[in-house]
Amino acid sequence: MTGCRTCKERATGVCLNVNPERAGGAYGYVDMGGWIGGQAEYVMVPYADFNLLRFPNKDQAMEKIRDLTCLTDILPTGYHGCVSAGVTTGSTVLIAGAGPVGLAAAASALLLGAAVVIVMDFSKERLAQARSFGCETVDLSEGGTVLDHIERILGVREVDCAVDCVGFEAKGHGGAEQPAIVLNQLMDVTRAAGAIGIPGLYVTEDPGAKDDAARTGSLGLRFGLGWAKSLSFVTGQTPVMKYNRALMMAVLHDRIRIASAVNATVIPLDQAPQGYADFDRGVARKFVIDPHGLLGGKT
Amino acid sequence: MTGCRTCKERATGVCLNVNPERAGGAYGYVDMGGWIGGQAEYVMVPYADFNLLRFPNKDQAMEKIRDLTCLTDILPTGYHGCVSAGVTTGSTVLIAGAGPVGLAAAASALLLGAAVVIVMDFSKERLAQARSFGCETVDLSEGGTVLDHIERILGVREVDCAVDCVGFEAKGHGGAEQPAIVLNQLMDVTRAAGAIGIPGLYVTEDPGAKDDAARTGSLGLRFGLGWAKSLSFVTGQTPVMKYNRALMMAVLHDRIRIASAVNATVIPLDQAPQGYADFDRGVARKFVIDPHGLLGGKT
Amino acid sequence: MTGCRTCKERATGVCLNVNPERAGGAYGYVDMGGWIGGQAEYVMVPYADFNLLRFPNKDQAMEKIRDLTCLTDILPTGYHGCVSAGVTTGSTVLIAGAGPVGLAAAASALLLGAAVVIVMDFSKERLAQARSFGCETVDLSEGGTVLDHIERILGVREVDCAVDCVGFEAKGHGGAEQPAIVLNQLMDVTRAAGAIGIPGLYVTEDPGAKDDAARTGSLGLRFGLGWAKSLSFVTGQTPVMKYNRALMMAVLHDRIRIASAVNATVIPLDQAPQGYADFDRGVARKFVIDPHGLLGGKT
Amino acid sequence: MTGCRTCKERATGVCLNVNPERAGGAYGYVDMGGWIGGQAEYVMVPYADFNLLRFPNKDQAMEKIRDLTCLTDILPTGYHGCVSAGVTTGSTVLIAGAGPVGLAAAASALLLGAAVVIVMDFSKERLAQARSFGCETVDLSEGGTVLDHIERILGVREVDCAVDCVGFEAKGHGGAEQPAIVLNQLMDVTRAAGAIGIPGLYVTEDPGAKDDAARTGSLGLRFGLGWAKSLSFVTGQTPVMKYNRALMMAVLHDRIRIASAVNATVIPLDQAPQGYADFDRGVARKFVIDPHGLLGGKT
Repeated sequence: MTGCRTCKERATGVCLNVNPERAGGAYGYVDMGGWIGGQAEYVMVPYADFNLLRFPNKDQAMEKIRDLTCLTDILPTGYHGCVSAGVTTGSTVLIAGAGPVGLAAAASALLLGAAVVIVMDFSKERLAQARSFGCETVDLSEGGTVLDHIERILGVREVDCAVDCVGFEAKGHGGAEQPAIVLNQLMDVTRAAGAIGIPGLYVTEDPGAKDDAARTGSLGLRFGLGWAKSLSFVTGQTPVMKYNRALMMAVLHDRIRIASAVNATVIPLDQAPQGYADFDRGVARKFVIDPHGLLGGKT
Repeated sequence: MTGCRTCKERATGVCLNVNPERAGGAYGYVDMGGWIGGQAEYVMVPYADFNLLRFPNKDQAMEKIRDLTCLTDILPTGYHGCVSAGVTTGSTVLIAGAGPVGLAAAASALLLGAAVVIVMDFSKERLAQARSFGCETVDLSEGGTVLDHIERILGVREVDCAVDCVGFEAKGHGGAEQPAIVLNQLMDVTRAAGAIGIPGLYVTEDPGAKDDAARTGSLGLRFGLGWAKSLSFVTGQTPVMKYNRALMMAVLHDRIRIASAVNATVIPLDQAPQGYADFDRGVARKFVIDPHGLLGGKT
Repeated sequence: MTGCRTCKERATGVCLNVNPERAGGAYGYVDMGGWIGGQAEYVMVPYADFNLLRFPNKDQAMEKIRDLTCLTDILPTGYHGCVSAGVTTGSTVLIAGAGPVGLAAAASALLLGAAVVIVMDFSKERLAQARSFGCETVDLSEGGTVLDHIERILGVREVDCAVDCVGFEAKGHGGAEQPAIVLNQLMDVTRAAGAIGIPGLYVTEDPGAKDDAARTGSLGLRFGLGWAKSLSFVTGQTPVMKYNRALMMAVLHDRIRIASAVNATVIPLDQAPQGYADFDRGVARKFVIDPHGLLGGKT
Repeated sequence: MTGCRTCKERATGVCLNVNPERAGGAYGYVDMGGWIGGQAEYVMVPYADFNLLRFPNKDQAMEKIRDLTCLTDILPTGYHGCVSAGVTTGSTVLIAGAGPVGLAAAASALLLGAAVVIVMDFSKERLAQARSFGCETVDLSEGGTVLDHIERILGVREVDCAVDCVGFEAKGHGGAEQPAIVLNQLMDVTRAAGAIGIPGLYVTEDPGAKDDAARTGSLGLRFGLGWAKSLSFVTGQTPVMKYNRALMMAVLHDRIRIASAVNATVIPLDQAPQGYADFDRGVARKFVIDPHGLLGGKT
């Protein structure tokens, strides 16, 4: 076990031992510890005695394996976004972004007992996916302010909790990059004393960005909007281990159907490039790569 | 009692009933409910059955009246900044700003059991005041990066917790307005999984600012710096009632000497203009206006 | 509003103002503030500006009025028992007692995301009611240890969380009063570091009890059982106001069907004596008295 | 690292891996994993990569080594008792027992910002030790009810928080064993909605006890007293690792002088039998055994 301070405090997303460069490691990223990409036949697991989660029963696990695969990343990430935003019994929740993280956050919000879960995105296909398991949706391609959309659905111009599942790659109505737009919208619509969970990635620098501010990772945030309402903001990689056992139990006992919610689609390793291409086109699918054919084919 | 949702949840800083414009009220501010300024002979107290704090014993209270006066605002504000930043037993804490809120935050951090409290400012007089009750200090007028100063004091290039007691009026080394500089510095120096408490005021708009972004309350925040370290940010007016009873007990039993820490200086009402002028010049004093001569003269 | 310390801290179940005798008040109890019984055409509401919960919309509320009636007591009580026991996503939960509070606790556990909810009782009718909304059950009339029953259901000899919805009127297998038996059983079966929520009533004295210890409210608790596992115990009347707004939202948006779970049965005021008689016989019903005929007749 | 569920949840006092018999291990106890006693020249440390705490600097550590020794057990235990009881800024606290754990709890309560810390015991020597660092005391040998003593000190007949540092070996006024007396007294005096931290040991069975109930570890608890006030009870071995780093920082920076508070007295290994004898006689000392002569002699 790493024995590091942050892991002992359950903040396993910023482990101090797996990466000599800075806190936190990940498979297949520059600057994240040199752990070669996880989309492979086999991976090295550092501190495996600490990091692995044991399933109670192999046969039972194999029946839910597509769902359990989501425990490695996407389900804890969506769930952490909701927990960070204070989602609990009876909450009204706005999820920005209907990609796989947004859909996992939406499913998590329902698991946490939210009264109403609203997902917003530009993609009709992804929004239809969100509606398939009980969410309300806001189609940003139709224009209008977020406040107006929320009022139409809830009857009031605010939500209790908001989750940013988009990050710095946010775009405005015309499709132009506006890295701060989602955070600014969420500050506008979150209730006083509320919180915003931010699993969506913000980068320290973005060399390919179009202007100087964005290149140095600087966002034009209307921070005073949030300050006037006493908002809290919770950022960062998810501490997967803080949640994975509880979520495993919820999956094994059918309290959440995450594979269905994110439209998990199993592909063999050699179809990964096609999966990436489809994903970039915005299909409402989460591709699960199955190098050894264990997951029983497509869907 | 207001009976509003946020007060019932203890977020009394954003009461929904005292202000028809938006959540939260205050004496003497535009947009804060029309409550005429509190620096007067008498004030109206809305929902007084809920809002007032009763002292256990009048004689005992009068002996500590200069300290107890700080319960109305400045002590809970500094304390809330620390609580929001996660200050607890053994923490290393950086306080940005050595004005009265910063000094109250520093005294609160010590009350909360912090191991080391570091206060940074440009004013030698205010930093001397911070040292008078056991803080370490960083004199920003000497130049150098905050990271280097912290390493000199702690031996490591990070603190556990940071509190922004400056807000949008922050200035850079040359004295120019740089409303985001404090937040950017604190993100740089706060440890992974840490938190930043932000009692310092950020405004929704700043009509007198020098550029368009600042005029609309937009800050150039290097948000990715914080995201990479999984930081949390807690903003807003203080929920005074959440803390005032506990802090009253700490004052009455000499666990904190807040009047001394902020150098509370009692003045009559007619010297208020001079007090403001002195404060604007940066004296290390918190002026306490005593319209009825109850506080027993100066100091 | 009462403005008392405990209400300000959200512990509204032990308000210091509604009862000159001791903390906490209730309708129709000796020693609880002299508030004449709530089963009447009209009731006095002390501090009504603080204590009442406003429904967002009358028409919407009337559609769910049987469910919303449960917000006054039984739903928050069951929910508080679960929250006190640490029930959350993926928990395995044992509820002792399938009376209305036990059924409300079971429904609350599911709302909180529990993986498996097990209800134990001697009454086959009440256990059938628990199974009707997805609970597992233990029929104590069949004999066997609780540990064995739990192992049969879960495959392990422990639960994460336990809720005592029985209280001091607990009986052993032969029907004899054994006021400590439920707590002793729950200590036996709750996992290390777990918690036991105790909404079931324990009295300070029980003049009609059969032995001296019971008459003075003394229980023979095997406290060391709990100590060896680092258990926590949370007792007392429920702080209804801490939960009622959130639960109202969950009811209005169909996230919990509490009237159905407790088999709420509407009766007119003059049938109250019959309702009490039926309840004492152990029917699996929660009687809701409707003095003004607002709830639309039976069921 | 053990990788067990409870350690991952920070409940390291009930580790599931160090003891095949039940949750939790300890040096030198029956039933606690077979770890041969810690009062020896060398000890085996299971899962040392997880369990050891590294000091930042050896020279600095050696200057405070008598204090740092207390991190292994007694300081975290007293601190955990206080945290469990909800001790925080401004609390009034009653500590039952002025042995080493009670004194460590008292010192911890002050570190946590308590307004008034009251220690009760029968031993004048131990109570004098408690007064030496700022506590109030109740001398139980003088008779009188605990409620009356508290009123004399605080002016009210209750404390906010209570910590039981005695456990099942409690004795009544005449010196007879009364294993439930401390818990019953603390329920009497703890305020509504308060909590009782219980680091004092309660055993699952006590073969040498004088009656059947005590032999089976059954206490005659007046549980209804606590229920009527909505009290919480937190029991068990301390999760040392949850606190030791923070307390180390507090020790290194002189925020707590624990060796002085518990009157730590260094003895060589061969004087351990005499230390035990002195301790059993009730001296106000915590003996620290120093097999290798590292701690610089007595005191």
